[in-house]
Amino acid sequence: MIYLTRRERFSAAHRMYRPDWPDDRNLEVFGKCSNPNWHGHNYVLYVTVRGDISEEEGFVMNLNILKKIIQDRIIKKIDHKNINLEVGFMKGKIATTENLSVAIWNELKPFVEKDGVYLHCVKIEETENNSIEYYGQKDRDDQ
Amino acid sequence: MIYLTRRERFSAAHRMYRPDWPDDRNLEVFGKCSNPNWHGHNYVLYVTVRGDISEEEGFVMNLNILKKIIQDRIIKKIDHKNINLEVGFMKGKIATTENLSVAIWNELKPFVEKDGVYLHCVKIEETENNSIEYYGQKDRDDQ
Amino acid sequence: MIYLTRRERFSAAHRMYRPDWPDDRNLEVFGKCSNPNWHGHNYVLYVTVRGDISEEEGFVMNLNILKKIIQDRIIKKIDHKNINLEVGFMKGKIATTENLSVAIWNELKPFVEKDGVYLHCVKIEETENNSIEYYGQKDRDDQ
Amino acid sequence: MIYLTRRERFSAAHRMYRPDWPDDRNLEVFGKCSNPNWHGHNYVLYVTVRGDISEEEGFVMNLNILKKIIQDRIIKKIDHKNINLEVGFMKGKIATTENLSVAIWNELKPFVEKDGVYLHCVKIEETENNSIEYYGQKDRDDQ
Amino acid sequence: MIYLTRRERFSAAHRMYRPDWPDDRNLEVFGKCSNPNWHGHNYVLYVTVRGDISEEEGFVMNLNILKKIIQDRIIKKIDHKNINLEVGFMKGKIATTENLSVAIWNELKPFVEKDGVYLHCVKIEETENNSIEYYGQKDRDDQ
Amino acid sequence: MIYLTRRERFSAAHRMYRPDWPDDRNLEVFGKCSNPNWHGHNYVLYVTVRGDISEEEGFVMNLNILKKIIQDRIIKKIDHKNINLEVGFMKGKIATTENLSVAIWNELKPFVEKDGVYLHCVKIEETENNSIEYYGQKDRDDQ
Repeated sequence: MIYLTRRERFSAAHRMYRPDWPDDRNLEVFGKCSNPNWHGHNYVLYVTVRGDISEEEGFVMNLNILKKIIQDRIIKKIDHKNINLEVGFMKGKIATTENLSVAIWNELKPFVEKDGVYLHCVKIEETENNSIEYYGQKDRDDQ
Repeated sequence: MIYLTRRERFSAAHRMYRPDWPDDRNLEVFGKCSNPNWHGHNYVLYVTVRGDISEEEGFVMNLNILKKIIQDRIIKKIDHKNINLEVGFMKGKIATTENLSVAIWNELKPFVEKDGVYLHCVKIEETENNSIEYYGQKDRDDQ
Repeated sequence: MIYLTRRERFSAAHRMYRPDWPDDRNLEVFGKCSNPNWHGHNYVLYVTVRGDISEEEGFVMNLNILKKIIQDRIIKKIDHKNINLEVGFMKGKIATTENLSVAIWNELKPFVEKDGVYLHCVKIEETENNSIEYYGQKDRDDQ
Repeated sequence: MIYLTRRERFSAAHRMYRPDWPDDRNLEVFGKCSNPNWHGHNYVLYVTVRGDISEEEGFVMNLNILKKIIQDRIIKKIDHKNINLEVGFMKGKIATTENLSVAIWNELKPFVEKDGVYLHCVKIEETENNSIEYYGQKDRDDQ
Repeated sequence: MIYLTRRERFSAAHRMYRPDWPDDRNLEVFGKCSNPNWHGHNYVLYVTVRGDISEEEGFVMNLNILKKIIQDRIIKKIDHKNINLEVGFMKGKIATTENLSVAIWNELKPFVEKDGVYLHCVKIEETENNSIEYYGQKDRDDQ
Repeated sequence: MIYLTRRERFSAAHRMYRPDWPDDRNLEVFGKCSNPNWHGHNYVLYVTVRGDISEEEGFVMNLNILKKIIQDRIIKKIDHKNINLEVGFMKGKIATTENLSVAIWNELKPFVEKDGVYLHCVKIEETENNSIEYYGQKDRDDQ
């Protein structure tokens, strides 16, 4: 088993809050990230897949295919967008990096996983100091 | 003459557009950056001052003073904000990194410059690939 | 299970040596790092916690709480200090990055772990080329 | 168990292709990386070992020893070389980063592993966006 | 005057040598960089232009235009290529980063400079430790 | 004129204080950097030289020569040392990054400058947020 990681970037606006909470509770829990006028980030996304090396090509997975999946399924839908208002796969979710990682995992998994390749990790850096890693819900015995 | 640079960061939302233009012209000129629902960035700000080394302290300028000026005059007003809607010193300006650099220069200059210290450069990285440097309007004979 | 990582930095002096060894043996084992007049580093600390995403807040753990714990328990005690002479939790230990990682783990664990959140990893970069990761002593079945 | 990582760099030329395929098939599978006139990269290599902290020295492994092994076994043989033509341990293999990671693992393992130290991971960044990690073939129960 | 910098990357093979010198002299002057079997790098290119901020658009220059010029004139011709053998604008020149910077400057200048915008600097990082900056041959009174 | 920059690193301990000041004044001016038990940094040093490109070799200056000068004149004398106690060229000076930059400039200048090559800039990053640049005292008309 070998692991291949592709790094992509997107810039987006978001706001962390619950619509069913009053502003002061949102402020208490989410701090300045709950600003109703939005703020934004340069998110860095790392997608890791695992599999065996194909003897024929020497690859776990052709990087051009992985790049295209990430572009089509994620970047085109989120780059230069408002995560709360415009990103279908985040609809109804609190726009935390945790929820974003799980949503991106779910978006990518059906497209990435075939021919013995598995989605292994979705990592998102929100700033240079904060990041989230998600490895899926189970079957992590070979992580 | 010696140059001291302080790096600070802020995350903000913005939109590049002219309210007096129709949407399609904004889209043509500003591309995806004109998205009406905003997007955002982790901006990196570098403030450079120049001066002589004080014989008494060995400093161009005490970094704690410079840090406090940048925090008070810029970061507190722009971090986790919407640059178009909430940042006083950007009011009425197109929210490009060029205009932002000049505005930050103008905000900092009166507070930074004293005792033989001059503001030398305001540099802003909007993404890892794009940045702007502004050195002020004149008197750059010692740049 | 999802993983949240916070990056913090501290600058400190240290010396790697054993007081019960003669200088030449210290020099042989620890090289220039055994310099009796000290040297120092900009250490970069990554603290990773794991847990489930709270449905209410969308967080593994509120980052402001994690930041405050790291600041109070580690950074305030070690930043701009001499690790050998001034840092209580390193008393009597050889000031290697390995021992520092374990000591920081032990300092953080009781404060970080509650409500289903576990300390997962303490990583320290001593230079851009050298780093240590510590995952605790057992119960790493879900690492 | 604690993990020590050493970062080293090398610059090399390579070409990804199969000599038993016609040019157009090489181009189809390997894209511009199959250029017969070569291209190259600044590869970044991370070697991670794991073990217990020696009570005597406070180390997993003396970094100077690890550095010397990586220099002697890998860097001297691959830096400023053509991976396809000049690197013995890549002879007959497609010059993908996957195959390179496994080959470097196999070169390092016999020299790194002694006195309770195990080779844990070989990671190679080919560009800032693409990387490979290899953890060996089995016995990863303590990864 | 304000400065806009765009960062682009390319991976290429090269060899530093003079065909009119014997191998041992090439080796003496260019060291391991004269390897006849080539080596390569991930080059990082920074192109800086200067000009006034357009009142209408708030830009020095539209970044999409600058990006396209750099892509068309440089990246497409050099990325994943052999600088010595395949890059027209380096023909007959020693493939040093110095010569490459001047050649890229000359390629870009006629396309970048119009409407009050001037090419200001071409910077190339060959590795994380080595870089070259070229500011053109004269008229640097406003640098 | 073209500019060549070499990046080197050193790790050192220091303390910013004046021996002729009482501790409380040192604390007031230099803050936590005046800690009598020292602290330290991973300093990053950038040395820039300028000159014409040699037609014979395509270089401003042979990098191996520049590297050796920086190693011999600076790195060997300061890496893993105490700047206040052990570095001859800092004797009697307050150990600020400003003074360090000027001292390194003075150490390098006589060895770097020959055959039409000039020392252009000494830049030191003390942390990822703080840096100093020194361009020498005069004759900066071609900076």
